[in-house]
Amino acid sequence: MTANLTTILSSKTKQVEIYRSRPTVMIGERINPTGRKKVLAALQAGDFDIVRQDAISQVAAGAVVLDVNAGVPGADEPALLKKLMQMVMEVTDVPLCIDTADPEALAAALSVYEGKPLVNSVNGEERALSAVLPLVKEYGAAVIALCMDDDGIPETPEKRLAVAGKIIERAGKLGIPPEDVVVDPLALTMGAESNAGRIALETTALVVKEFGVNVTMGASNISFGLPDRKYINSTFIAMAIHAGLTCPITNPMVSEVMLAVLAADLAMGRDEYAMNWIKAYRARNKK
Amino acid sequence: MTANLTTILSSKTKQVEIYRSRPTVMIGERINPTGRKKVLAALQAGDFDIVRQDAISQVAAGAVVLDVNAGVPGADEPALLKKLMQMVMEVTDVPLCIDTADPEALAAALSVYEGKPLVNSVNGEERALSAVLPLVKEYGAAVIALCMDDDGIPETPEKRLAVAGKIIERAGKLGIPPEDVVVDPLALTMGAESNAGRIALETTALVVKEFGVNVTMGASNISFGLPDRKYINSTFIAMAIHAGLTCPITNPMVSEVMLAVLAADLAMGRDEYAMNWIKAYRARNKK
Repeated sequence: MTANLTTILSSKTKQVEIYRSRPTVMIGERINPTGRKKVLAALQAGDFDIVRQDAISQVAAGAVVLDVNAGVPGADEPALLKKLMQMVMEVTDVPLCIDTADPEALAAALSVYEGKPLVNSVNGEERALSAVLPLVKEYGAAVIALCMDDDGIPETPEKRLAVAGKIIERAGKLGIPPEDVVVDPLALTMGAESNAGRIALETTALVVKEFGVNVTMGASNISFGLPDRKYINSTFIAMAIHAGLTCPITNPMVSEVMLAVLAADLAMGRDEYAMNWIKAYRARNKK
Repeated sequence: MTANLTTILSSKTKQVEIYRSRPTVMIGERINPTGRKKVLAALQAGDFDIVRQDAISQVAAGAVVLDVNAGVPGADEPALLKKLMQMVMEVTDVPLCIDTADPEALAAALSVYEGKPLVNSVNGEERALSAVLPLVKEYGAAVIALCMDDDGIPETPEKRLAVAGKIIERAGKLGIPPEDVVVDPLALTMGAESNAGRIALETTALVVKEFGVNVTMGASNISFGLPDRKYINSTFIAMAIHAGLTCPITNPMVSEVMLAVLAADLAMGRDEYAMNWIKAYRARNKK
């Protein structure tokens, strides 16, 4: 078992530490037009109120980092991403997770960000490694490493572990330390492949054992196409926390998911005297 | 990693296999007067309707084994336990878990049971080992081994593992195979000790790795004294399933817990094509 590493993210005024014996760090997923028609339409119309609201309400619900994605088809992504980040930074003070597949947009976003952001993401493809990692190094950011490469998404936990290892090694060669690489084992859809959850959980455990790095996961896809998704997502996220997940990217507005994360931290012995659990209970019952 | 063992229980007409790659086996906890004033009063008054109802409704909710406890202060426990078991066997056909601390009541219950029951429980105390294990062997039963002994409940997972090992060894000397020993790592109350959940989860993982045996747990105590207990219990049971729990003793009538068990099986890849999940969803929405 490798020692657990600490990833530090920051905004201009706030620092967030991600570490396996501390409470889980929720990364809010909602500032993302993908699959959200209302957000997409608003952004296309130049209306940013919904982005400000999503930022404020996610932080109020418990997110301590916010993911910002500006993937609007046909838009000038570098300009839009910078704009969205500025909006979010105006109304909240949490560190951001810069979510883009476009290296040009990433460079633009990094150039305006004050603090140490999380870059979402790099994968093991040669093209991605050589485009993204130098930017991560230049701006002193941390980066999410997706367990996939030029051969696609490996089917076995062992092969996903190998991809994670390759990215950590390549990052290291550029001077990015392993604590600044946060691995995403990839939680695919169980509706399509019954073993998708098991593979993500096993990959998580292997990655933690081998590298001690922090682990993130988009933990909502897992239930796509199945009924009663919120129960699947909340159960899965708790199991993933047990396996070693430390900073899920999810929707903190879904109370079942938030409760599962708080209860999981309690069960892992990361909530002394159950103070966070009781505080959240009181907040829920004051409304 | 040791191979996973299969525990087989049976009633007169039904067989239940407990095995780590199969769906979780729910043992219904409700036929137990401890802490249930209504049940206690009914039994004291000689009214067994509530027992019959609890048996039927737990099986309908998904329990595949039923725990039967006759711990009524001042009662003739051997006679009452036999009577309760007969009641339950009249209205259901699932295997039973005979729950008593009294070796005389255990002998009486075993003598009337048809099939292979689960004995709840033995612990590592000399007195318990020498009173319970010979009965388990004589009647060809399986037995729950509590991780505690003459020195009390160990505080560390490693010491609880050692107690489990001692019981498995003693059982082996009498000819009881390890697959007929189901270990209970003891989930104590987190309200009293913040690390109680973590210790139970770590003990579970150690026991599975070392012995490959099945693991049970009374998974409701964990939240005693805390608010919103059902969310804690459902989250904890899912994490415990990930750690290696295969046959929790719990209340299948709490829908949050039942959903968490079904979702956990799905996440562990034990529910092909999500058929059990979808079937249960349809059953819930037919009502």
